[in-house]
Amino acid sequence: MHRSDIGSQKPIVVGVDVGGTKIAAALVDEEGHLRGCQTRPTNILSPEATLDSIAELILEILNKENIKSAEIRGIGLGIPGLVDPHRGIGIASVNLRWENVFVKDEIQKRVGLPCVIENDVKAAALGEIRYGKSKGVESLIYLNIGTGVAAAIVLNGKIHRGQHNIAGEIGHAVVDIHGPRCQCGGRGCLEALISGPAIVRKFQEKKNRSRKTSLAEFVAENHLLSPKEVYEAASAGDNAARETVDEVSRFLANAIQFLALAYDPQRIVLGGGVVYSTPLFFENLMHVIKQLSEESWVSRHLSEPDFITVTQLGKDIGILGAAALVP
Amino acid sequence: MHRSDIGSQKPIVVGVDVGGTKIAAALVDEEGHLRGCQTRPTNILSPEATLDSIAELILEILNKENIKSAEIRGIGLGIPGLVDPHRGIGIASVNLRWENVFVKDEIQKRVGLPCVIENDVKAAALGEIRYGKSKGVESLIYLNIGTGVAAAIVLNGKIHRGQHNIAGEIGHAVVDIHGPRCQCGGRGCLEALISGPAIVRKFQEKKNRSRKTSLAEFVAENHLLSPKEVYEAASAGDNAARETVDEVSRFLANAIQFLALAYDPQRIVLGGGVVYSTPLFFENLMHVIKQLSEESWVSRHLSEPDFITVTQLGKDIGILGAAALVP
Repeated sequence: MHRSDIGSQKPIVVGVDVGGTKIAAALVDEEGHLRGCQTRPTNILSPEATLDSIAELILEILNKENIKSAEIRGIGLGIPGLVDPHRGIGIASVNLRWENVFVKDEIQKRVGLPCVIENDVKAAALGEIRYGKSKGVESLIYLNIGTGVAAAIVLNGKIHRGQHNIAGEIGHAVVDIHGPRCQCGGRGCLEALISGPAIVRKFQEKKNRSRKTSLAEFVAENHLLSPKEVYEAASAGDNAARETVDEVSRFLANAIQFLALAYDPQRIVLGGGVVYSTPLFFENLMHVIKQLSEESWVSRHLSEPDFITVTQLGKDIGILGAAALVP
Repeated sequence: MHRSDIGSQKPIVVGVDVGGTKIAAALVDEEGHLRGCQTRPTNILSPEATLDSIAELILEILNKENIKSAEIRGIGLGIPGLVDPHRGIGIASVNLRWENVFVKDEIQKRVGLPCVIENDVKAAALGEIRYGKSKGVESLIYLNIGTGVAAAIVLNGKIHRGQHNIAGEIGHAVVDIHGPRCQCGGRGCLEALISGPAIVRKFQEKKNRSRKTSLAEFVAENHLLSPKEVYEAASAGDNAARETVDEVSRFLANAIQFLALAYDPQRIVLGGGVVYSTPLFFENLMHVIKQLSEESWVSRHLSEPDFITVTQLGKDIGILGAAALVP
């Protein structure tokens, strides 16, 4: 029997996006259509509890969609943090409070289906080239900007891991020696400057320093602060927000340019909560990228159409990336 | 006849390091020993003149060493600028004033031996893994710091070129938005901050601003300025030199850390005129790298022995890299 026969018999996989706050899962067909999508809060009381809740969610979807296990080709899980996909182990995940968890074996045991795991950002990159607008692209950098900042590198259609399994961890590259402390211990890491929390914190600091409007007044007027609100305040003419947004775009543009010169990929695709939150984020970024590419011939291609894009898969890239893991 | 038979019959190749100011060439054996090494000023009156002078140099070495063409496996040429090794064309070289020169064909015609060409920094990286301390290393970044700054990327033992043939051109990554103009048109490019000319210029600017010693006085005391002299002045306690050296090490350390996180290679090897000019350059750099690696767990491996090194091949890496091109 040919591989394609097996594929045509079992076109459906389960994609599971395991996040620190919620788990999202769905059935995914060959074309990347989602079916029976469900989410639930992540139970991080213990690794056992998390695994139980993942397995329950999968079984619930199969049940509700009236699909038998035998009709499913396999399960893919995208997991934050360090992952060993070959051994199926979640090596370390701060958000899930995991250390050396045998995810693959435990999920297979609970659900009775073959399971594949991968770091969530790396999985997303594979989702983009399998189901997204980058179908068939051989070399691509997927840059995730959310609570964390990390890139996944695709070369010759495969994830490039590197010698210590940290290839793409540019969230911890120091891009401003006078920048704020990062969770990793460093100072001025990219993540400490352009992640969601970093954008809000930078805006708050600038607001506190400005004499026109106090932060308290601003928050009272604008309720809770999110990157989206900072970008909208910038658009509405708030100076502190304008400065914040400019700095974020500058540092991100420089990092993207560095990646483009280091790897020279076919394209660079952006995703992650901060990117999806408002189109202003990408607009502002591309404004700075355009300046960079006009200044130097070496970077001319950065502003070419489709060289830098936002994934069209949106938030579904988590589930679709996980689904793309299943062979 | 097996490939190894051919190799054992003709163990000698010619390596030619074509620079903007001088051409160096030698016979190179399988172990990387140089024989009959000669240099001459580069004749850049015309591409024809340059090619003639390269060919004459090769024939002169063969003649003096009393070796027949038939005993030579081939000629390798390392060339500055953009090179198309497949078609054997020097696409663009500012230093040589070359544009679309059919180097391979023209040298083969003049010397009567098979010829291979490559960008000089990429060739050097291949020289390092063929003849240097990185023998057998599969993933390596070779970073050249001289008049220009560029990296060559080796993945799976092969040069990674990228989509536009610019992979590794991080000399033109913007690392300081307030930095000086670069030749490429950009502002604050790495090359404009840490190349040989950049080090001297930065020192001169600081010296001009300081009130203690004028630049004129300093130059009168210290004769011509070179990066070496700036580093030695820093060691001797000169403040402007100290500041210059600190800034150079910081920017370079950040760039190396970015490369290390982006590619996660087995090792990073430094070469180029600035690196060879004084051991103080590497000493100062590693001091900052150590700080970076102590601050953040993500960068811990940067200060491990032999992760970042200076090539032991020294200036011969130009000729040896060219020699390593010959299959």
